[in-house]
Amino acid sequence: MDVIDVFKTGKIGDKVSLEGWVRNNRNQKEFGFIDFYDGTIVDSLQIVYTKELDNFDEVSHYLVGCAIKCDGQLVESNGKQKFEVKPSKIELLGDCPADYPIQPKRHTMEFLRSQAYLRPRTKTFQAVFRIRSLAAMALHEYYQKNNYTYVHTPLFTTTDCEGSDQMFKVTTLDLKNVPLNEDKSVDYSKDLFGKQVYITGSGQLHGETYAMAFKKIYTFGPTFRTENSNTKTHANEFWMIEPEMAFMHLDELMDAEEDMLKFVVSYVLDKAADEISFLDQFVSNGLKEKLEKLVSSEFTRITHHDAVELLINSGEKWEFTPDYESDIAKEHEKWITEHFNGPVFIYNWPKDIKAWYMKLNDDGKTVAAVDLEVPGSGELIGGSEREVDINKLEELIKIHGVDRSQVDWYVNLRKFGGVYHSGYGLGFERLIMYLTGIENIRDVIPYPRTPGNCEY
Amino acid sequence: MDVIDVFKTGKIGDKVSLEGWVRNNRNQKEFGFIDFYDGTIVDSLQIVYTKELDNFDEVSHYLVGCAIKCDGQLVESNGKQKFEVKPSKIELLGDCPADYPIQPKRHTMEFLRSQAYLRPRTKTFQAVFRIRSLAAMALHEYYQKNNYTYVHTPLFTTTDCEGSDQMFKVTTLDLKNVPLNEDKSVDYSKDLFGKQVYITGSGQLHGETYAMAFKKIYTFGPTFRTENSNTKTHANEFWMIEPEMAFMHLDELMDAEEDMLKFVVSYVLDKAADEISFLDQFVSNGLKEKLEKLVSSEFTRITHHDAVELLINSGEKWEFTPDYESDIAKEHEKWITEHFNGPVFIYNWPKDIKAWYMKLNDDGKTVAAVDLEVPGSGELIGGSEREVDINKLEELIKIHGVDRSQVDWYVNLRKFGGVYHSGYGLGFERLIMYLTGIENIRDVIPYPRTPGNCEY
Repeated sequence: MDVIDVFKTGKIGDKVSLEGWVRNNRNQKEFGFIDFYDGTIVDSLQIVYTKELDNFDEVSHYLVGCAIKCDGQLVESNGKQKFEVKPSKIELLGDCPADYPIQPKRHTMEFLRSQAYLRPRTKTFQAVFRIRSLAAMALHEYYQKNNYTYVHTPLFTTTDCEGSDQMFKVTTLDLKNVPLNEDKSVDYSKDLFGKQVYITGSGQLHGETYAMAFKKIYTFGPTFRTENSNTKTHANEFWMIEPEMAFMHLDELMDAEEDMLKFVVSYVLDKAADEISFLDQFVSNGLKEKLEKLVSSEFTRITHHDAVELLINSGEKWEFTPDYESDIAKEHEKWITEHFNGPVFIYNWPKDIKAWYMKLNDDGKTVAAVDLEVPGSGELIGGSEREVDINKLEELIKIHGVDRSQVDWYVNLRKFGGVYHSGYGLGFERLIMYLTGIENIRDVIPYPRTPGNCEY
Repeated sequence: MDVIDVFKTGKIGDKVSLEGWVRNNRNQKEFGFIDFYDGTIVDSLQIVYTKELDNFDEVSHYLVGCAIKCDGQLVESNGKQKFEVKPSKIELLGDCPADYPIQPKRHTMEFLRSQAYLRPRTKTFQAVFRIRSLAAMALHEYYQKNNYTYVHTPLFTTTDCEGSDQMFKVTTLDLKNVPLNEDKSVDYSKDLFGKQVYITGSGQLHGETYAMAFKKIYTFGPTFRTENSNTKTHANEFWMIEPEMAFMHLDELMDAEEDMLKFVVSYVLDKAADEISFLDQFVSNGLKEKLEKLVSSEFTRITHHDAVELLINSGEKWEFTPDYESDIAKEHEKWITEHFNGPVFIYNWPKDIKAWYMKLNDDGKTVAAVDLEVPGSGELIGGSEREVDINKLEELIKIHGVDRSQVDWYVNLRKFGGVYHSGYGLGFERLIMYLTGIENIRDVIPYPRTPGNCEY
């Protein structure tokens, strides 16, 4: 029996038999209170035990962190929960010493990071990682009910389209003694795949091949970048969702992104109501309101050109001067979402600052790319229509210096029944940070990997 | 509008507007037939066009593989489908040349493997990869409805518990010129993480840390082994599901596996009825019956000792002699599932042939491990109760030569409210092979990676 089911469907008088852990145990001579949890919901269930228990003395000495089994009955509570447990039997299943690092007090996030294998037991991380799990489910539900096919694009790849300097190398060679050819290049014939292999930084190109077969597909898997950057928003290992849709232009891409995001946020508000309330109270005040507002808001659509014009004419003093040919800075993103009081799609970006595979607009200067900016977090989703004109694509490949031999199959897609199509990339951690109000990416990944940090 | 929705909810007389591809186009002077698909269901929808179309001549020359848009109406069909489309307008969206490699005829699986980016357009691979997508969804649905938390265990790890010789190394170092220390060891201080990092071969140990916080968790992600083995069942990159459940002994583990598997198979039979029928007819005769039988069968439970006894006394001539101390060979698995006419759990295995973290039984000779054997495929799931006695675990770590310093946190789990728990590993590709009747793992992975093969 899980605590979440007790909370959801339990009634006064129900018999319960629960296994879980002691979050706190306070007692006096005649009775005691155990804050009991089993990880299926962030809330604790209170067990109120008295001398009626055979092993009252033993139970009153259970320390924080112990695993116990509790049989009993749901009775009315004087506390804020609708009931508590009156135990008929409590049994120790796993002991815990007094020097257990997780105690019922406020630990700093930094300390908890150093206890990565224990921190999921705290209320904050119970909330964060249940929301992570539920958000993943929300995404799968959304795509599947809309007939998207889930595709596992490969992690090992020889196509280094994101730039091989940004990709980790994978090898079975002995690094102490790498076999070299006569010309001092690496002798990859001795490596398991017989060639230089990387771990992917994006499944998009492979995803497009499947969109040309299944119409609508999505990926959801780990992604890797070697970026040597120690910020709150960068990790070297993270999860990405990369849907790709045939027969879809930029306008419908924006529709698709908005529809997906509203579904996911609604789902989490519904299924993780207790977790959101907890985080709203203790981690990020106003979280619930922020999420509810997103669901009911109209997403504004504005071109990059018009957005820059607004920024220039805003009368604000900018650290970075807004520019028609440049990216939009964090401060600009913030201003724009506040100005429109909601999420904003910025589309038609200068071609030179976007990726090579994006569709060139008729103006010859912009590409059909779109970034979604959300209040409080800035850029959440980046997408574009893809270039399908084979001649333009060939030119873009040349201009951007992409190794043509590696993308032969990708170019061929345009030849064999290729049609207009669009896709987007959603960084899963960025979504979780948005959904939880957690500000450091290290705190939404179970075991984060950042430069110099690969513990456990 | 998607073809799957037309098949599911369409009625004679409905107007439709569809985008997709031409699987075949046969025509005569006055009319023609297009086998039309959009990848949302394996079945083709037939478009019957006549001279009433303005562009009849053009349409009659559309080649296999073209992308088209078709507006029209559902009308009664003389064929086996309940309706066909009478088009009012057909438009070419993407052309396809006559040398398109995928033609409406039987291609060999070997040829299609060489066209990995086009093969998902064939009916066989449409069926296989839709089932792959649906089976993934079935797993998520099963675990979430049973209160399991989905955990993304790290892919990059320094814990090489599966044996580092079986793990790929990951690096940002220049392989042509690896920096060495004075003692000729690799100078990992120059590497991004500052140490030797591998790609994981299992998320189990990390998963256990989350089971001690969330009671029931599951992983579902890519996994890697360097095995230099070119068989039908081995790939170097594959996906695994590794659930881990606190407060669960071996018996309930078997219950949990059986319950999950029956759910997934039922789900696929229901949601991929057309795909299963297609594969049953063209790839694996009897597939549907095999799957239906699994759902309704009782799973037998037998100890390894008793299974070996049965094999010895069977009167069969074995290539590999059954042995109380050894693994069970393919031929034995086959015999056992045939003997019991259904799936069989074999449990309590000799400790020396199983992993170091498995719970030692009271006999001191066997571990509480269980393999699930299914008719037609052999071993599908491997699981065990985990050793929670900290002293026994320390001893096992010594005996198996595990680097103690790497598993400090894992051992600590036993100290801090550690309880009996169990988990299993399900190879996702093995499941898909079982569900589709496909016999080569290369044909259930979009872009398979095997020794010497890392294309695209």
